[in-house]
Amino acid sequence: MVRRLSTADDGFEATFAALVEAPRAAAENIAAAVSEIVAAVRTGGMTALVDYTKRFDRFDLTAENICVGEEEIAQAESRCDSETLAALDFAAARIRAYHEKQKPEGLRYTDEAGVTLGWRWTPVDAAGLYAPGGRAAYPSSVLMNAIPAKVAGVGRLCLCVPAPDGSMNPLVLAAARRAGVDEIYRIGGAQAIAAMAWGAGPIGPVDVIVGPGNAYVAEAKRQVFGRVGIDSIAGPSEILVVADGANVPDWIAADLLSQSEHDPSSQSILMTDDAGFADQVAAAVEVQLAASPRREIAAAAWRDNGAIILVRSFDEAPALVDRLAPEHLELAVADPEALLEKIRHAGAIFLGRHAPEAVGDYVAGPDHVLPTARAARYASGLSVLDFMKRSSIIGCDPEGLAAIGPAAARLADAEGLPSHAQSIRLRLK
Amino acid sequence: MVRRLSTADDGFEATFAALVEAPRAAAENIAAAVSEIVAAVRTGGMTALVDYTKRFDRFDLTAENICVGEEEIAQAESRCDSETLAALDFAAARIRAYHEKQKPEGLRYTDEAGVTLGWRWTPVDAAGLYAPGGRAAYPSSVLMNAIPAKVAGVGRLCLCVPAPDGSMNPLVLAAARRAGVDEIYRIGGAQAIAAMAWGAGPIGPVDVIVGPGNAYVAEAKRQVFGRVGIDSIAGPSEILVVADGANVPDWIAADLLSQSEHDPSSQSILMTDDAGFADQVAAAVEVQLAASPRREIAAAAWRDNGAIILVRSFDEAPALVDRLAPEHLELAVADPEALLEKIRHAGAIFLGRHAPEAVGDYVAGPDHVLPTARAARYASGLSVLDFMKRSSIIGCDPEGLAAIGPAAARLADAEGLPSHAQSIRLRLK
Repeated sequence: MVRRLSTADDGFEATFAALVEAPRAAAENIAAAVSEIVAAVRTGGMTALVDYTKRFDRFDLTAENICVGEEEIAQAESRCDSETLAALDFAAARIRAYHEKQKPEGLRYTDEAGVTLGWRWTPVDAAGLYAPGGRAAYPSSVLMNAIPAKVAGVGRLCLCVPAPDGSMNPLVLAAARRAGVDEIYRIGGAQAIAAMAWGAGPIGPVDVIVGPGNAYVAEAKRQVFGRVGIDSIAGPSEILVVADGANVPDWIAADLLSQSEHDPSSQSILMTDDAGFADQVAAAVEVQLAASPRREIAAAAWRDNGAIILVRSFDEAPALVDRLAPEHLELAVADPEALLEKIRHAGAIFLGRHAPEAVGDYVAGPDHVLPTARAARYASGLSVLDFMKRSSIIGCDPEGLAAIGPAAARLADAEGLPSHAQSIRLRLK
Repeated sequence: MVRRLSTADDGFEATFAALVEAPRAAAENIAAAVSEIVAAVRTGGMTALVDYTKRFDRFDLTAENICVGEEEIAQAESRCDSETLAALDFAAARIRAYHEKQKPEGLRYTDEAGVTLGWRWTPVDAAGLYAPGGRAAYPSSVLMNAIPAKVAGVGRLCLCVPAPDGSMNPLVLAAARRAGVDEIYRIGGAQAIAAMAWGAGPIGPVDVIVGPGNAYVAEAKRQVFGRVGIDSIAGPSEILVVADGANVPDWIAADLLSQSEHDPSSQSILMTDDAGFADQVAAAVEVQLAASPRREIAAAAWRDNGAIILVRSFDEAPALVDRLAPEHLELAVADPEALLEKIRHAGAIFLGRHAPEAVGDYVAGPDHVLPTARAARYASGLSVLDFMKRSSIIGCDPEGLAAIGPAAARLADAEGLPSHAQSIRLRLK
């Protein structure tokens, strides 16, 4: 039985607060183990990669096979069915088009004091992308991580994918080629993150590392942060569906299960103003669960982390939505735009009854790498900005410096920094 | 004697690589101590704040004096001299004007498939700012951290400043009022960061924490990251001055010392194509050092971390600049725009002979919180973006879903996620 909350209940605030604060990802104490791997790769390079790959992936890495060649990628593609490849192409084109629109612009201007000001955006030189291997290999994630880098203008994009027992997912290779990945390496885990951060064997160091992975990969990203930039550390996925009683219960049930089926720690929440509809959805979830090939995972997630929240009116929804700050938010109501106006925190927002979250996972265009665990209060999804940086630009001629220099020198005096003041006053003489 | 490098030397690459990679900030092993403080504040709230403030700041914190009131701020202002206050106002107005231009815009559009796409930027609800107290209290940092938050539209901005032995810097309070800070608390250290992240006593939790601090503050920010967003962890400051022989040696010497005087671990580097000019600057540095009230700090920084790099031609400069990826870069050459075009990595770039870095610290307008330690390869200075987040927007009607849904369902099939596919196919029937 999924938990049911109602804003009309006396204990609602406490129950809701507990739901908001409940940790879903178990903290693993692997910092020391990861630190050892990172240090070993940093000092040992290729030798360490060979050792760890033998141990963790049961694969004999060599200088010849570490890099996945053009021919192997072409062979992998030939094993994929053409309809799926066409869907990948369709997705890649749409993701590229959306991210192109998010490329930031620089600015240059001269202000009323005669000072030249502005900023310039430039891409990082090199980015590294991690993709899980084996059964959890998702070609869509390769597109969603690699395309923003290439749209940003990153010159060198390398991808690390583990090859457990030597096997690689052909669709992952096909996605990497479509996304413009320049180099693919057959390594995984914390050792792959360390190799991209510091360089190892044929792998040159990168400036930014992104992409999902297991707890070792996440901890390794944390540890190399500062040496390189990283995207956020992703937690289990989440969906909050705000739906009125005019929806088809089966559709909403499938939306809820589309997150539950990811992982037992995923969270799916239905918020509705219609108790009868809530019952229908709950029943539909049970029916669909029974038929799902992923029912064990989905049932555990729904039972342990799922919830149905009954509100007296959708006027109560925005404040509750903002406290949950969900990764994915569906507004399956008659006037989604009106509700959207009142909501502030969510990673991606799906409008209307015909916008299931799954279209956002694959083909809509916006990135599917989104803030989890309430990070949507302060963080954004992956974008071209994660692969670019902004330099401020300041130019003065003697007149401009005469206009703004004295105030700066005065503040330098107040802060007790004499050379700061002197660097200005010498030029004002 | 400062170290001298020349690209004409045989050993240049090794010496330059050592300069680039040399760590300047000593790693302190304080994670456990900070973790204890953070946990104590999280569980103990005000009681823990009182204990730590007594111990570290020798100040008896109470429910009455933890918050700095309007009257105290007004009294502090009355102790500041009017010319310095006018300079603060001047700086605040210019910083505000620049950051206003960096406010990002949302977008909504319907693409050729009939799908509604876009994104929306919204500010975080609450931000926390840390400012060091005592002698290292910099009112300019309060402006540079607080103004972007307010320009972003943050509703609640709180500031924590330690009051060692009860004393506070009046200019810091004056700067906070000018920047629009809503709440000021008289606490510091890791305990202040924990209080803002989790809430404690009268301090409500915030969503983002920014601002400089000592090693305890930096480590506390690292530890609360995820609970809240943080700005980057700042290292010792740096300047790289690229100057030809037509500059006044005294001006360039002052520019170099304006970074050296911050901290013994600061780094100042001169890159020039004129050996005679290099000698003149080196001599001018010694003269200015001898006269500086901060000569101990500045001399240590210049001796231990400073450098003069002689290039055969400025054609060699861009590649070397990009490897250093300096926080501050001055281009004091005849045609700075031409050089700017070829350079990719720097936090802030100052153009021409009349743009000393110190104007950027105070009044130019761009933020003075900038990436250090080569992070300019991938990171940007503080801006309104650090206080905002972007929600993706996706809307479909039946026609839009019919256009893009089948490809998404196909990819869900390929990834083995049946409920993803079902949430789309049920709607396509």
